Order: sequence, then C-alpha cells, then structure tokens
Amino acid sequence: MKQFFVLTLFPEMIEQTLSHSIMGRAQKEGHISVEAVNIRDFTQNKHKHVDDYPYGGGAGLVMQGQPIYDAYQSLLPKAEHARVVFMTPQGRPFTQRVAEELAQEENLVFLCGHYEGIDERVIEEIVTDEISLGDFVLTGGELAAITIIDAVSRLVPGVLGKEESFEDESFSEGLLEYPQYTRPPVFMGREVPEVLLSGHHGNVAKWRREQALIRTAKKRPDLLKKAVLTKQDIAFLQKQGITIEETE
Amino acid sequence: MKQFFVLTLFPEMIEQTLSHSIMGRAQKEGHISVEAVNIRDFTQNKHKHVDDYPYGGGAGLVMQGQPIYDAYQSLLPKAEHARVVFMTPQGRPFTQRVAEELAQEENLVFLCGHYEGIDERVIEEIVTDEISLGDFVLTGGELAAITIIDAVSRLVPGVLGKEESFEDESFSEGLLEYPQYTRPPVFMGREVPEVLLSGHHGNVAKWRREQALIRTAKKRPDLLKKAVLTKQDIAFLQKQGITIEETE
Repeated sequence: MKQFFVLTLFPEMIEQTLSHSIMGRAQKEGHISVEAVNIRDFTQNKHKHVDDYPYGGGAGLVMQGQPIYDAYQSLLPKAEHARVVFMTPQGRPFTQRVAEELAQEENLVFLCGHYEGIDERVIEEIVTDEISLGDFVLTGGELAAITIIDAVSRLVPGVLGKEESFEDESFSEGLLEYPQYTRPPVFMGREVPEVLLSGHHGNVAKWRREQALIRTAKKRPDLLKKAVLTKQDIAFLQKQGITIEETE
Repeated sequence: MKQFFVLTLFPEMIEQTLSHSIMGRAQKEGHISVEAVNIRDFTQNKHKHVDDYPYGGGAGLVMQGQPIYDAYQSLLPKAEHARVVFMTPQGRPFTQRVAEELAQEENLVFLCGHYEGIDERVIEEIVTDEISLGDFVLTGGELAAITIIDAVSRLVPGVLGKEESFEDESFSEGLLEYPQYTRPPVFMGREVPEVLLSGHHGNVAKWRREQALIRTAKKRPDLLKKAVLTKQDIAFLQKQGITIEETE
C-alpha cells in the first residue's frame, strides 16, 4: 500500500477532497492511504500561532519552522526514508514523468505552505524535492499536493477500474488523445465519424493515430517534437503539410 | 460577485474542497460563489447512466453528450454569456496569465470529464475554452477546475486578506520569490541573513531582488529569459557568471 502524508494547516480539506470518486475507493480498498497532519497541533506558541512577520519587512506572514519541523518529526516512525515534497512555484514542474517517478516510492510526505511562504531554514532542513504544479499562484499548497496524489495514485496497480483504464491515454506516447464518441450515432445533428462504425479494427486504429497526430500538431506542437513517431506517422504529417524531424 | 459553475459527476467534492480556508471565507463574504451541477441529475437514461462504450472499441467508457448538454442548458438563465471551460490535457496550458485573463470574466462554467473522456460532439457544441492544468493525467477534471477557481479567485478584490497579500509574489515580475525568514533569529543552528535584521530598507530590497534573480537563474532559467530585467539586474547576473540578453 502506498502511503501519503500531508503536512498542512487544513487537514480536513485534504481528507475530504480525497474521499470521493476513485481516490475514495482506492483508500477503502487499501491501495493507498492518506494521512493529513495538522501543523498547528505542533506549535509551541500559546496562542497556537504558526506564523509571524517576515524579517526584513513586507506584507504577509511567514510560516515558522518549529511547528513544521515537529509535525514532520512526528511522522518519522512511519515515513523515515520518505521523500519530502514541498509544493512551490520554485520547484521542478510536475509532469506525467514526475508522476511515474513518484509512483515508484513506497511513501511520500507533502509539505503545504500558506500565506507568504515558509521559513527557508525548515525547507533546507527537511525538504528533499521542490515540485511546482505550474506557473501560477494558489492560496496554498494543498490543492497542488492533492492533485499530485491523484496523478500518482492512479498509476498504482488496482486503483483504476476497467472503466477508467489508462490505455491509449494522453502522454502515454507523447501525443494528445484522439476524439471519443459514444451513443447515439447522431447527436445535435452531428454524426459519429463513419470509420468508427465500420467495425474494421485496422482502420479505426489508423484513424485514431492520425487524429492524435493532427491534434498534437495543431494544439501542442512542442509535444509532437518530443513524441516517438514512426516513419508512417511522419509521412502522414507531411501529407498534412506538417514537417517534423525524425526523433531517431 | 464572481460566479463559478461546475458541471461534474462529483458536486460534493467541488463544494467541500472549496469550503475551507480562503476560498470558504471568500464565499461566506460574498466575493465569489461556487455552484456545482450534478451531470447525473440530467440523464434521460432510466438506470441513471451517463456514459457508454466508445464507438470504434477500446477500453474505458465515454461520457455521453445528452446529460452534459442538458446540465449546461439548466445553467443558461444564470450564465448565458459565460465562457465554458473544459479541463483537458488537450487545452491551452494554465498559467498566471490565463488566471488573470479569467479573473476578468463575470462568471465561468467549468466542465469536468471522467473515464476515457467526453463525447467530442458535446465539446464542439458548448465548450469555448479548453484549458490544461499541465502535462499529466488526473482521474477527472474536478481537481483541475478547483485549482483554477482557486488561482482565479485570489485575484478577485477582497478575497485575500493582508496576511495573504499578493505583493512581491512569484511571477508578479516573471521571477521566482526570494527566500523568507521569520522568528526566531536562529533555528536549527541556521541564522537569518544579516541584511534582513539591519533595518536598512534599501539593502533589504536589493538583497531580495538579487536572491530572486539568482533563484530564477538557477531553478528556472526559462523564466529569466522572459522576465522584465533592469540594467542593474543584468549587471548583477553577469557578476554571478550568468549571461542574459536584455529584454528591451
């Protein structure tokens, strides 16, 4: 069972959010566990404060080192060699490849900041990985941690059911997904592409591959450059007027 | 008041997750509202199904157009001219600039997919914007929508209190944030940088700017290339052995 620990000021937010849908089922079935630790429970401040003004001045409050460090220490019996991931725009950008890498770990600790940030010294002391969900700013690290837990958990064997299969999905070969259609055959006057109704597996597979190539070329040419393409793929793209150098 | 509407199979997940911390307060104080609409409530299928097998075969289930379209129609009285954002790895990558753009809208509708995707025809029919949280795969669009609602809401005037001030934050000038320190002056044997204790505002500002430059150069050189830099910034970076072309 893969164990996730989250150091946070909002433990209920972590637990509630991950109690639904596939993540909720994955916990009930014992594929993953999520434990949120309330940093505030570890403050030595008599008013239960966990933050203070920044040295050097400026707006906002900074989370203090002591409660975070002690909250982390409380986890050590359960997560001694676990990587400690701090969610920050400073970090390595999160991608499917990072999700695959983190899915190899037995357990993971996430540290979520709030306010203007966290005292740098506790980051230096306990954090092993800084990861960024993207180039945007959130009210706290919680949503970033939850999102990463979701992306990593679905790679854990048993977490996805067959309806949620991860064959043929985005990024599995560096391409965007082909369009999907289901019943009815005509919806809002729009028909399902004929080839999908043909029952000819070879033609369906060829059409889907081509759609994935066209979409990736149109929407994310940066991905296409890094994708693994066959000679047929490159020939098809050239016919569409899209030139690409061979990757190998 | 900025209104967010979310078309989802997991309305409780949306509402619970956004009921905490700053987003919870922003709703209570009337700066934003969040309404989750359960797509399943609109199915005409007698078993309440909202999905079916994909035309052309393959693993997984595809969400059908009818319940999504009807759920969207139910919102029209409240969100007639609203942009409809579909969360998908196919979309435009979400960045702080996209957050700023969406913060200008009066109201926004988010469409969250699950399983293997959504029938392409309903996407063509109702969606105005496809946005991707990043190059990774989630179990559904909910976490992506919640994350975007958080990033957009904190730009709405009144949502952030002064402890959560958004001066000097990441990306405000295209640079990563400088390190922050708060009490005590020595933590785990590590001292606060002396300049921050000096009370000399000019020196503090200079040190912080230089730290932001060094960090961005080291961790995210791609951001540094696009950042707005002064002549002093460039001179400082050159002294550190970092060469950068002037942006203007």
